Amino acid sequence: MSIRIGIMGYGNLGRGVECAVRQNEDMTLAAVFTRRDPSSLQLRTPGVPVYRAENAAAHADEIDVMILCGGSATDLPEQTPAFAELFNIVDSFDTHADIPAHFERVDAAARAGGKLAIISAGWDPGLFSLARCYAGAVLPKGADYTFWGRGVSQGHSDAIRRIEGVEDARQYTVPVPEALERVRSGEMPTLTTREKHTRECYVVAKEGADKARIEREIVSMPKYFADYDTTVHFISREELQRDHAGLPHGGMVLRSGRTGLEDEHRHTVEFRLALDSNPEFTSSVLIACARAAYRLAFEGETGCRTLLDIAPAYLRRESAEELRRTIV
Amino acid sequence: MSIRIGIMGYGNLGRGVECAVRQNEDMTLAAVFTRRDPSSLQLRTPGVPVYRAENAAAHADEIDVMILCGGSATDLPEQTPAFAELFNIVDSFDTHADIPAHFERVDAAARAGGKLAIISAGWDPGLFSLARCYAGAVLPKGADYTFWGRGVSQGHSDAIRRIEGVEDARQYTVPVPEALERVRSGEMPTLTTREKHTRECYVVAKEGADKARIEREIVSMPKYFADYDTTVHFISREELQRDHAGLPHGGMVLRSGRTGLEDEHRHTVEFRLALDSNPEFTSSVLIACARAAYRLAFEGETGCRTLLDIAPAYLRRESAEELRRTIV
Repeated sequence: MSIRIGIMGYGNLGRGVECAVRQNEDMTLAAVFTRRDPSSLQLRTPGVPVYRAENAAAHADEIDVMILCGGSATDLPEQTPAFAELFNIVDSFDTHADIPAHFERVDAAARAGGKLAIISAGWDPGLFSLARCYAGAVLPKGADYTFWGRGVSQGHSDAIRRIEGVEDARQYTVPVPEALERVRSGEMPTLTTREKHTRECYVVAKEGADKARIEREIVSMPKYFADYDTTVHFISREELQRDHAGLPHGGMVLRSGRTGLEDEHRHTVEFRLALDSNPEFTSSVLIACARAAYRLAFEGETGCRTLLDIAPAYLRRESAEELRRTIV
Repeated sequence: MSIRIGIMGYGNLGRGVECAVRQNEDMTLAAVFTRRDPSSLQLRTPGVPVYRAENAAAHADEIDVMILCGGSATDLPEQTPAFAELFNIVDSFDTHADIPAHFERVDAAARAGGKLAIISAGWDPGLFSLARCYAGAVLPKGADYTFWGRGVSQGHSDAIRRIEGVEDARQYTVPVPEALERVRSGEMPTLTTREKHTRECYVVAKEGADKARIEREIVSMPKYFADYDTTVHFISREELQRDHAGLPHGGMVLRSGRTGLEDEHRHTVEFRLALDSNPEFTSSVLIACARAAYRLAFEGETGCRTLLDIAPAYLRRESAEELRRTIV
């Protein structure tokens, strides 16, 4: 009676899901689906079949929940609505501004297929959305603050790599300690983009490349860097490998609010993550959501959900009785 | 179409609920119920009737959700099952070991009356239960740690006041910084009671009382102090009034866990509260739960719930669409 998990896409996130399944005794990895040649994939779990993504429909009976491990830019806007009609699915769609439209498309597909879909699972959106939801419910008079880092932003690292003369790069997003202290103090400051985060770039330049020009292009890049205090460090390929191989990340959601007859009391709610591996932690959230999707589908529910629509106990293996006895 | 709130019991918590209702535009304070003489109560909200607790049943039609603001030791074990048959209710029952039995009694009463009950709302149990639930769902291989303070424990302050020769007292529970650092580092230490918290006592002795005996009785008191490093400071009544009049509290739930093929990556999830007023913050949680109780009852749900059984969006005024647009 194990929950049979399918992985769609075997990149960092897919490999993270593969690891996460092994930590959850009520689940089994049933199959991996890929757009590459299946024989080219070397799974880390023995005995699991690898199928072509385009043949997924033929394996619908073998999968209880399909985890969509593609990217939010181009993969998920196509894949999630397509697969939500065939499978119960979980995705990590993280383009905040497009979540409402993505939700509507996935909801229609899942209802049409009689399936249950959970979108935007992960940590932001995901656990951070939950923190914002609960803190704002409890402190209606207050202000929200989200800080990211210290951690590697893959989008910003990619943006640097696209600059001519750059061989490789790693970008860290770093919260400004003074801004954090002001928020924690309860003063509810108004903070600009520049006041909240700095950006640290570690860049490997190609031989003979104009480093001054690369640095100028980075710090003036609109949206990505121009609104931030950005520092650029040129390092060797070896240093990048040695010191910046991991994908750590994390961050904080804070809400500072007031209560009392005349708003005389201050309160701060803080939710904080410190993660050695961004993709593995995200995968762990996806797997907990897969359990919820399985249960909701089992109860006959259909359509799209986010974590805000799901009672927390659905994410846990234990019964409601056991949870009341142990963690309430 | 305002949610009509009733307050049962007008102590610190009841007054906190009175303040919290004013911050939530979708609610109105409909009535306060008391076991005291109603004419002796001076509400801070004009025009709200005060009724005798024993006549509450006669006012069932005037109240959408009754907030039970009594204590967990003697009031709530009686009141919650009794009132859950007549009203949708919310309570803050916080005797962790007795939550399963309390749940069963309240569930039976609420089902019999066709009402919806939410118990053990507040911050621990309550928001801390949620933090333990989510963090454990996401990091099944890991360890939980709950720290309380720095803050005033009313139970421990009362225990000191019961000692002969004590006029008044305030007890602060204080997390040990070294223990916190070890947990945050991801080493997953095993910590004894003594290693996690210290206890600071501020005591006003009666004139001529034997301070050495009072101190001995405090530090050796079983369960309350004997297992902790406890410090006792004798101060004047004026100093207690001046420096220790508030009821601040707070604390942290941390979960430290591992992921990866060989558990090679560490992650820390931390949920932290810093509260100027323990009763007012608890009241704010109760009021958010009142909204959820109202909505669940409106949908025809009956029986008992804890926060673990409730989808987070039910706590918020905004529609699911608006939440997806703004906070997911």
